[in-house]
Amino acid sequence: MVAPKPFLDYIDSNVPKFIDRLAEAVAIPSISGDASRREDVKKMAQWLEAQLNKVGVKTAAIPLGKQHIEGQVLDLPPAIVGRIGEDPKKKTILIYGHFDVQPADKSDGWNTEPFKMQFDKEKGIMYGRGTTDDKGPIMGWLNVLEAHHALGVELPVNLRFCFEGMEESGSEGLDDFIVSEAKKGAQGWFGGVDCVCISDNYWLNTRTPALTYGLRGLVYFNLAVSGPGADLHSGAFGGAVYEPMTALIALLGQLVTQDGRILIPGVYDGINAASDEELEIYKNLDYSVDDLEAAAGGKIAVSDDKSTVLMARMRNPSLSIHGIEGAFSGAGAKTVIPAKVGGKFSIRLVPPQRADDIRVKVEKYLKEEFAKLKTKCKLDVEYLHGGIPWVADHKHWNYEAAKIATEVR
Amino acid sequence: MVAPKPFLDYIDSNVPKFIDRLAEAVAIPSISGDASRREDVKKMAQWLEAQLNKVGVKTAAIPLGKQHIEGQVLDLPPAIVGRIGEDPKKKTILIYGHFDVQPADKSDGWNTEPFKMQFDKEKGIMYGRGTTDDKGPIMGWLNVLEAHHALGVELPVNLRFCFEGMEESGSEGLDDFIVSEAKKGAQGWFGGVDCVCISDNYWLNTRTPALTYGLRGLVYFNLAVSGPGADLHSGAFGGAVYEPMTALIALLGQLVTQDGRILIPGVYDGINAASDEELEIYKNLDYSVDDLEAAAGGKIAVSDDKSTVLMARMRNPSLSIHGIEGAFSGAGAKTVIPAKVGGKFSIRLVPPQRADDIRVKVEKYLKEEFAKLKTKCKLDVEYLHGGIPWVADHKHWNYEAAKIATEVR
Ligand SMILES: [Zn+2]
Ligand SMILES: [Zn+2]
Ligand SMILES: [Zn+2]
Ligand SMILES: [Zn+2]
Repeated sequence: MVAPKPFLDYIDSNVPKFIDRLAEAVAIPSISGDASRREDVKKMAQWLEAQLNKVGVKTAAIPLGKQHIEGQVLDLPPAIVGRIGEDPKKKTILIYGHFDVQPADKSDGWNTEPFKMQFDKEKGIMYGRGTTDDKGPIMGWLNVLEAHHALGVELPVNLRFCFEGMEESGSEGLDDFIVSEAKKGAQGWFGGVDCVCISDNYWLNTRTPALTYGLRGLVYFNLAVSGPGADLHSGAFGGAVYEPMTALIALLGQLVTQDGRILIPGVYDGINAASDEELEIYKNLDYSVDDLEAAAGGKIAVSDDKSTVLMARMRNPSLSIHGIEGAFSGAGAKTVIPAKVGGKFSIRLVPPQRADDIRVKVEKYLKEEFAKLKTKCKLDVEYLHGGIPWVADHKHWNYEAAKIATEVR
Repeated sequence: MVAPKPFLDYIDSNVPKFIDRLAEAVAIPSISGDASRREDVKKMAQWLEAQLNKVGVKTAAIPLGKQHIEGQVLDLPPAIVGRIGEDPKKKTILIYGHFDVQPADKSDGWNTEPFKMQFDKEKGIMYGRGTTDDKGPIMGWLNVLEAHHALGVELPVNLRFCFEGMEESGSEGLDDFIVSEAKKGAQGWFGGVDCVCISDNYWLNTRTPALTYGLRGLVYFNLAVSGPGADLHSGAFGGAVYEPMTALIALLGQLVTQDGRILIPGVYDGINAASDEELEIYKNLDYSVDDLEAAAGGKIAVSDDKSTVLMARMRNPSLSIHGIEGAFSGAGAKTVIPAKVGGKFSIRLVPPQRADDIRVKVEKYLKEEFAKLKTKCKLDVEYLHGGIPWVADHKHWNYEAAKIATEVR
């Protein structure tokens, strides 16, 4: 179904106004991870609520409790929820987005002021923090709502909104709210919702939009290895003692091969090989190994085969070593034997992997490998957090509708 | 030769005064590594020079040039040189010490104010930054000089002094001064020196003083492994790219066994096994594996055999892995694939190992091992700095004199 002509005309003739509105949103530095910007995140929430009200959406600002950050106790920014349309004959769609952003500063390498949006008309590109993640997509919904409101045209679906201001900082507070709201059933803000549209996703590359129908899960570990009572000087102790770093490095070296095969026994249990139908999808995606390497900024793809790379990225588990806490991490040279070091790594999970099962396998394997080292240092395998993998049916009517909606005619 | 009785009586009767003088020195927070304390290091230099002058030592404050630190350009603290005694029939001894200290703060775990010296009379222990390293030993020389001066007793040797204020920060500026002064021969501050006494050394343990007659050298490396153009998110790239951390961890794992055997081919070339005479020394030293583990704060000695541990500590090369630059090193969990990481490690050297030779062997080995990994990441082996190992003849008259001087009668 193509959008009606008056709607398209309204959008086309209001482009400058829509761009100005996005610039207005970008100008509010709503950085959720920076305590000193918390008031800006709240300001952004108020701004968004007012915009929604103007186009006929009934809203509420939901307090999400307190946050302990940088030694202070701060209010979490409220979630902004909204609803428009109450027709039981229509589908009800819940829209998710976030109005907070990551930090940005010219000194990080920006060519323009990150919170002063620049529009390059020739290239059709807007520069500014949040233009794409995730203020731009939210503005897209405001534009749609405004067009219907101004033209007096009825929306084809009932819409519900859930916009948060902590996405870039772990969505603190949102889970609890969603769970308690869902329990209210028809009485809650999410009552009657038929499906969800998450307006905060990647494109496949710089050419082709994508519909995300799965997300890998996560288990994150800290391998804490300890030995001496305090950091030692390598001149005085080097050679005479078992060193935690030597043990940790050996252990981290037992996790994954250079080309990404995870060495933990049983970690691949239950994962099906891709069906011919699934393989066909990868083959036909507008994607190349060059795209991946351009995005990564280096010639480092694990394979020259497009499907292999796509599956490695999207449907296989993977293991990454992130760093070491407690060791020397500065520039220059320091001759320290660190007393206690923590090796951080995580595994991306895919269905049917479960965090609890993988956790048991990881702990068993690492304790066994550590015992083989015959060091006098001690190991503690700490599980830091996890998230379940998720995959949806991309033939669901919601995806079919989205496919049509994103087609260029 | 026992010291003459009037000298010993003077020392005994002036203990409270000597302790007060040390407290006065400790009270000046002459932290060389902290730019904001530079004036205190200079103040400490002036204080010391005045003390030396009072007891008849001719001195000079030697400017050592500028230092670039924390974005500022600062004067280096001067070296204080001195001389007393010009008798050509006597030996001439050069005394070295340093009047700067490491940082210290109650929040580091001190039980007392680090720059307000406390004297526990019952235990005979003084608490304060610099009481042992290295203001205390310098005060020892002042006490000796004062006793001779007050009693009108001639010193048995000519003394020369070289006290610096940058020892805890790499002795910046001192090398150049010593080299240029040595070139002046008899005209220089170090002209006619027969031997050197370094008043800044370890005891063997908490019971027994020691005479240091050797010091291991050092080669320090950074293994820089790079791949992506910027840090990547493991959710989006994990599995699809070769990761620099995976390669670095594998490489660091090829350096040394858990019990300290260095795996670099040729690294032990030319190192002699200990002679029976040398083995006898280790056997008779007042030292135990418990001493080592008490000092290290953990049951982590590489052996239960005292001589093995002593040799590992004093006469064998060793390899320590210090940490990783560029990876995640904070608390908590961050799902980053670091783009460029630097693995820091160093090798302690013993004669006849030479830094230049070891450096060649390390680079050859690591490049070969890296090639075996078949990663698409890149390796750069950076040599950061080195120091030559040193061993002296412990039967030299200087050591024989020191043995007698440190005997308890
Ligand atoms: Zn986002
Ligand atoms: Zn984001
Ligand atoms: Zn010292
Ligand atoms: Zn020191």
